[in-house]
Amino acid sequence: MSNPISAGLWVFASSAEKFSYDAELSVREQIKAAAQVEGLEGLELIAPTHVTVDNVKEIKALLEEVRLRPVSVNPNLWTDDKWQYGALTAPDEKIRREAIETAKRAIDIGHELGTRRMCLWPGQDGFDYPFQANYDLLWEWTLEAIREIAEYDPKTQIGYEYKSKEPRTHMLVGNAAKAALIGELLGLKNVGAYLDFGHALMGRENPAESVALLARCQRLMGVHINDCYGLWDDDITVAAVHLPQVFEFLLTLRQVGYEDWISLDLVPVREDIVEACRLSVRYIQSMQARLDKLYADEGKTKALQAAQSSLQALESQEIIRELIFG
Amino acid sequence: MSNPISAGLWVFASSAEKFSYDAELSVREQIKAAAQVEGLEGLELIAPTHVTVDNVKEIKALLEEVRLRPVSVNPNLWTDDKWQYGALTAPDEKIRREAIETAKRAIDIGHELGTRRMCLWPGQDGFDYPFQANYDLLWEWTLEAIREIAEYDPKTQIGYEYKSKEPRTHMLVGNAAKAALIGELLGLKNVGAYLDFGHALMGRENPAESVALLARCQRLMGVHINDCYGLWDDDITVAAVHLPQVFEFLLTLRQVGYEDWISLDLVPVREDIVEACRLSVRYIQSMQARLDKLYADEGKTKALQAAQSSLQALESQEIIRELIFG
Amino acid sequence: MSNPISAGLWVFASSAEKFSYDAELSVREQIKAAAQVEGLEGLELIAPTHVTVDNVKEIKALLEEVRLRPVSVNPNLWTDDKWQYGALTAPDEKIRREAIETAKRAIDIGHELGTRRMCLWPGQDGFDYPFQANYDLLWEWTLEAIREIAEYDPKTQIGYEYKSKEPRTHMLVGNAAKAALIGELLGLKNVGAYLDFGHALMGRENPAESVALLARCQRLMGVHINDCYGLWDDDITVAAVHLPQVFEFLLTLRQVGYEDWISLDLVPVREDIVEACRLSVRYIQSMQARLDKLYADEGKTKALQAAQSSLQALESQEIIRELIFG
Amino acid sequence: MSNPISAGLWVFASSAEKFSYDAELSVREQIKAAAQVEGLEGLELIAPTHVTVDNVKEIKALLEEVRLRPVSVNPNLWTDDKWQYGALTAPDEKIRREAIETAKRAIDIGHELGTRRMCLWPGQDGFDYPFQANYDLLWEWTLEAIREIAEYDPKTQIGYEYKSKEPRTHMLVGNAAKAALIGELLGLKNVGAYLDFGHALMGRENPAESVALLARCQRLMGVHINDCYGLWDDDITVAAVHLPQVFEFLLTLRQVGYEDWISLDLVPVREDIVEACRLSVRYIQSMQARLDKLYADEGKTKALQAAQSSLQALESQEIIRELIFG
Repeated sequence: MSNPISAGLWVFASSAEKFSYDAELSVREQIKAAAQVEGLEGLELIAPTHVTVDNVKEIKALLEEVRLRPVSVNPNLWTDDKWQYGALTAPDEKIRREAIETAKRAIDIGHELGTRRMCLWPGQDGFDYPFQANYDLLWEWTLEAIREIAEYDPKTQIGYEYKSKEPRTHMLVGNAAKAALIGELLGLKNVGAYLDFGHALMGRENPAESVALLARCQRLMGVHINDCYGLWDDDITVAAVHLPQVFEFLLTLRQVGYEDWISLDLVPVREDIVEACRLSVRYIQSMQARLDKLYADEGKTKALQAAQSSLQALESQEIIRELIFG
Repeated sequence: MSNPISAGLWVFASSAEKFSYDAELSVREQIKAAAQVEGLEGLELIAPTHVTVDNVKEIKALLEEVRLRPVSVNPNLWTDDKWQYGALTAPDEKIRREAIETAKRAIDIGHELGTRRMCLWPGQDGFDYPFQANYDLLWEWTLEAIREIAEYDPKTQIGYEYKSKEPRTHMLVGNAAKAALIGELLGLKNVGAYLDFGHALMGRENPAESVALLARCQRLMGVHINDCYGLWDDDITVAAVHLPQVFEFLLTLRQVGYEDWISLDLVPVREDIVEACRLSVRYIQSMQARLDKLYADEGKTKALQAAQSSLQALESQEIIRELIFG
Repeated sequence: MSNPISAGLWVFASSAEKFSYDAELSVREQIKAAAQVEGLEGLELIAPTHVTVDNVKEIKALLEEVRLRPVSVNPNLWTDDKWQYGALTAPDEKIRREAIETAKRAIDIGHELGTRRMCLWPGQDGFDYPFQANYDLLWEWTLEAIREIAEYDPKTQIGYEYKSKEPRTHMLVGNAAKAALIGELLGLKNVGAYLDFGHALMGRENPAESVALLARCQRLMGVHINDCYGLWDDDITVAAVHLPQVFEFLLTLRQVGYEDWISLDLVPVREDIVEACRLSVRYIQSMQARLDKLYADEGKTKALQAAQSSLQALESQEIIRELIFG
Repeated sequence: MSNPISAGLWVFASSAEKFSYDAELSVREQIKAAAQVEGLEGLELIAPTHVTVDNVKEIKALLEEVRLRPVSVNPNLWTDDKWQYGALTAPDEKIRREAIETAKRAIDIGHELGTRRMCLWPGQDGFDYPFQANYDLLWEWTLEAIREIAEYDPKTQIGYEYKSKEPRTHMLVGNAAKAALIGELLGLKNVGAYLDFGHALMGRENPAESVALLARCQRLMGVHINDCYGLWDDDITVAAVHLPQVFEFLLTLRQVGYEDWISLDLVPVREDIVEACRLSVRYIQSMQARLDKLYADEGKTKALQAAQSSLQALESQEIIRELIFG
């Protein structure tokens, strides 16, 4: 009942030896690198960075060749100069139009690849300074754009990857509830949140609570995993910093019945990328094994449920301590 | 067009000389203290701490005597031992029932006093430890309770005063969007957020953006003002730390057409309370005067609007600099 | 080679059932409560709260009776109204004099009890507002006072318990280096830092790094352990949040040769206090056992040393993962 | 008595229209851009990025041509691949040697240019993961390297530009006291801190307090000014966010008698660089003018001193409010 593990293909953009952030490898080489990570079963792709209407068949064949399944197709709305003041919220209507069309193409490509999921990250949508923005307009543009994208194909799950900051000092959609609220305000079932573990921490959320809230609203569209120190999107390896919170995150995903992908979203600056992914997979698997052990013991499982339902922290802490160290 | 200024009566709970947190003054004395603050026109009251079904007429007369209007009646759901594991989310059903009834009584009292507004702060609803809570249950109980409270009188505006932490390490409803989401999930028009400036900062929000989002959803039910350093609810005097953000907050309240109360929520630990309120009122008035000056200059007003609509930070910063220092 | 575990006696001030913060138990009852925590071998005491020149023999006998050793005698410089603007840095010279004398009495009591260690926490020394303080004066008064206290008995180790905030929004001595700097500026060998794990996190330190820096300066005078979320002094049970960092902290204490006390400093608000301490002791012991296992394996120990000396994060992370989950 | 204003030449590295971070302009063009900022009187230069042993005469002439004085020569220890695991703390001794020699060359160049000040920022010295580093070694290497650099020319002021994070999740020397402590441990008078306003905030310092502490130790070697939100080195324009704190910072610089340079260190990503500097200069000048007004009023000046010496927050707040808005 463990979640299958995937990764964002962008994780493999740089070769292991390279300190700088520039992509060095071809898409083919990146997919080959991903295929070296034991336990990895799927990939998130970015359009048009990795996959386009033109090369989609080639990419599909390549994925099949290395036995990695497509998880999502995510429109690139952040790296190009044209998005510098925003994509869905660009002040220039033409740029907003381009952003919407880019997202629709990602949906088209998803159809070809065989996935109906999008991680939507308009990474420049927000502001840096007090007094800089007309916030009401930013919200209006965001809602309009997402309506058009989501209605383009009601079967594609649109998960807004919320994040409180970086690269802007303030991103517009900075927490799980904002992403869920967009779905509610639009009244569209296929709009929700893409929950990134580190982003949840940056928004001062407890990631497990965000899982529960989003699952309750049926707006948990996808999951990224990594770790950070809560101040910035460090994207370091899983459980390096927030080990108990990752463990609780995986437990809560089980509790709410989320059986879908968990995608690694790491940015190892000085480390070997394939090794960083392997380490992260092993950490997840170590914890999943501990959870299997917990669930195999009905008494322990019920004791934990009872402690959680009555908010008895010491009892649940002791169960977890035994599970980890016992 | 400035907002009228009010205060929470609890602000005046301690005499000026007292370092400890214990209330020293009677409710009558507290109201008298509040009346010494020039520019203050209203009070938020807590039920049953300040006002009950029994003493409501007496309190009403007292308010009239000192010419302070009732702003809201807020149920006390946090100081008593029985709320220690939560109020709306207490694991014990009987305690949850008590919480709901306490809130209904606050509504009844509001009718008598002549205000249909509630700042709802279930200050113990949340958790302190990873693995402590069944988050889905916390949400279920929260939604159930608020539905019952809000349906008890659809004309009373219920503003959930969101806060990310303190006294719990994690409060359940920690940001503006969560409060708005509750209203959307319940489909009730009289449920929204009570926006506390410091709480917005604690949730890593820009308070002005929260104003705009909540106004757009028609879920801005009330406003608390104070200042803090963003890590804890310091409740120090207005603009001491976040002067530009307070200024933008007041501007945005105008822009969205909020003409209602702004309530001081200060907890001066070592300072004279009446003086702390006077200082805060003067800061607000100083900024309101600058905003009047801005609005009196049509060219400047349009220039600021244009800068904000096109996200030109330097242009709006320069307008603000001139407005403050020019 | 594990560190002996102690606790602050204040941890046991309230009975388990009490939500409020008021002390309910007598000092005798508190010591009896502490004695129920298996694995606890010592106590830090506060003077005059727990121990005075008058009752020191009685307390000494009581400690012997329950087989708990005295760890330190800490002057109470924070709860009384007179300290509200500071103790060592009170603007009133008479109050500063009282603070110094209170600290000297704690040294005297330590002599009687048989400990020459002080955790010095001037909990009101700092400021809350921009523009509030003459910082140079605060530093002058701090240096003067600590010189006098430390020279009163050069054999008593004075550890300034640094903390960045709470109860003040800014405490003057907010990080490890400031505490060490005081020792260097005074040129006194018996002045250094009392390192509280949670306070280190609040100061955006990595606690293990602070251990190494202070040990290098020979200014690590004592250690408090607990956990928090880094924004406030939550004082929750050990490893609940920062499990890897606690583990690294214990490892680093070994690496630098610190074989002295580790004191629990917990403030369980809603939890049974004795149980909270027991849980924390078990967490520490679980990790100590893992460290014993590491040190028993020379190859692993050397591999970790090599990885750390060459800053190879993935290698050390994998060793730790195996140690915890393997 | 206002401080002269300078800037880091790196601020002008990109042309105004360019969103990407890559330098586009030649050093000559950058200096010309700097010369367009009215009120700017000096420049900090990086060696070898801007100035080398070979081109120093040419640069000197160019500075004279545009009437900008040299403020400091700062060794580049962060952009090259070789520094990826650290410069002064690189595990490879050869790299550490290169770092030291790079710094010595900066001193040599300073002699030629006519400045004996260095802002030393070993931007890769630190760590990203728990368990990654041997902290004691990092400190040993840091102390060794700085001794050699500082002793190379005792008349050159070496200011370590401390910073708690970015690009590493943890930089080794993350706060003012650590930088001062290095000077004390080495017993060298020409070693201290380069205080960057935003870095001080990132270290949870109040920048004005850091000024006072460093001035007291005679270890305030230089000042960078900018603004940020305290979580990351946003490097946005002065006073955009922390207006009261900037004001207090400028006041405290006067109070401690620092009459030297204040250097703009801005990184405007989406804004016109010259305009961002002009705006920042105007903000500083606006505040300096207000401080001149304060100092011209002896009664006000004394009242503020009295309030600060007795920690009366409301009194100093009111003086400041009047000064800004009166």
